[in-house]
Amino acid sequence: MRRSEAVAEAAITLLAERGMRGLTHRAVDEFAGLPPGSTSNLARTRAALLELTLQRLTELESTAMSPAAALPVEWPGEGRLTGSAAEEPLDRDDLAGVIAEVLWGLFADRRRTLARYELALEATRRPELREIYDRAGARFRAPAVALLAAAGSPDPERHGRQLVAYGEGVMFDAIAGAGTTPTPEDLRAGIGEFLSGMLS
Amino acid sequence: MRRSEAVAEAAITLLAERGMRGLTHRAVDEFAGLPPGSTSNLARTRAALLELTLQRLTELESTAMSPAAALPVEWPGEGRLTGSAAEEPLDRDDLAGVIAEVLWGLFADRRRTLARYELALEATRRPELREIYDRAGARFRAPAVALLAAAGSPDPERHGRQLVAYGEGVMFDAIAGAGTTPTPEDLRAGIGEFLSGMLS
Repeated sequence: MRRSEAVAEAAITLLAERGMRGLTHRAVDEFAGLPPGSTSNLARTRAALLELTLQRLTELESTAMSPAAALPVEWPGEGRLTGSAAEEPLDRDDLAGVIAEVLWGLFADRRRTLARYELALEATRRPELREIYDRAGARFRAPAVALLAAAGSPDPERHGRQLVAYGEGVMFDAIAGAGTTPTPEDLRAGIGEFLSGMLS
Repeated sequence: MRRSEAVAEAAITLLAERGMRGLTHRAVDEFAGLPPGSTSNLARTRAALLELTLQRLTELESTAMSPAAALPVEWPGEGRLTGSAAEEPLDRDDLAGVIAEVLWGLFADRRRTLARYELALEATRRPELREIYDRAGARFRAPAVALLAAAGSPDPERHGRQLVAYGEGVMFDAIAGAGTTPTPEDLRAGIGEFLSGMLS
């Protein structure tokens, strides 16, 4: 592992376990087992450390959409996901299954998601961090819009936003809120209903 | 204002503006314009200060459900909301309008919602705070279940949870995430579709 990855990994774990107050340069050195000063050498300021951490988190989460790559959809952007345009609208059950799989994958790493929430809140107070966070968020938003368009949505932009918000809410409620993690069946049923409301 | 309210109000603002790191007993004294030591006298430990703050936040948010009080629904619990049982299922458009109104009211106080998110994350690390947070969360969940039942949901428990998660996601995405605040029309349209997927 490169040193910057070791630092970012330690920072992600500290954010999840101890929150924003527990993240210091010194704690990262200790937690990663690095000589004192290593983290400061890589990221001198607190802002730089937060940005390094969010960038690593974004890299780690970039594989989250991979279950959708099998769907016959034309993806926007830089070709990270491939697929060919469909003649027929996407099957709604297939789509619900894939979205449930994506969410389930994100659920699986509670540590990562908690760290992302810490950074989202901190980004409300740091414009540079906000910019990175929003750019990373677009990586989920654009595919969500493409999926809804392929499924025949009459308003894919709005519906894509709603889908992202729903996924975020299910995760936040279960991981940080007063809710519990849904069973895979409940998750799938909820997404199926959500899609049917938008697509019928 | 009682002194405990002044302390809690200052703590809510500090949490929203500076995050968990910015909340200290001394900062609360200064921000509330109280003599040094006032906050410590009221809430000796950090845990006590967080609990006092969350309790005040819950009081403030308890009026959020009031737009729903006009609906003909039998409410669970301690009679905070009243209404009579309906013979007919609740009209879906009326219900969507009321839910949009509730969410709009919660949106309006960004400061309060940001402070609640800070406390939700902190509650993942503090069991006593978690208990208060989850008890407060039930105040939204039980009415959501009652509303879905009155609207004819075949599975009001699951649907109530989904509704709460959706509302939370729309707020988190707009306030802390990579999204933007929906227009009242988009909010209402999204809730209408969400309900129609669950109720048809």
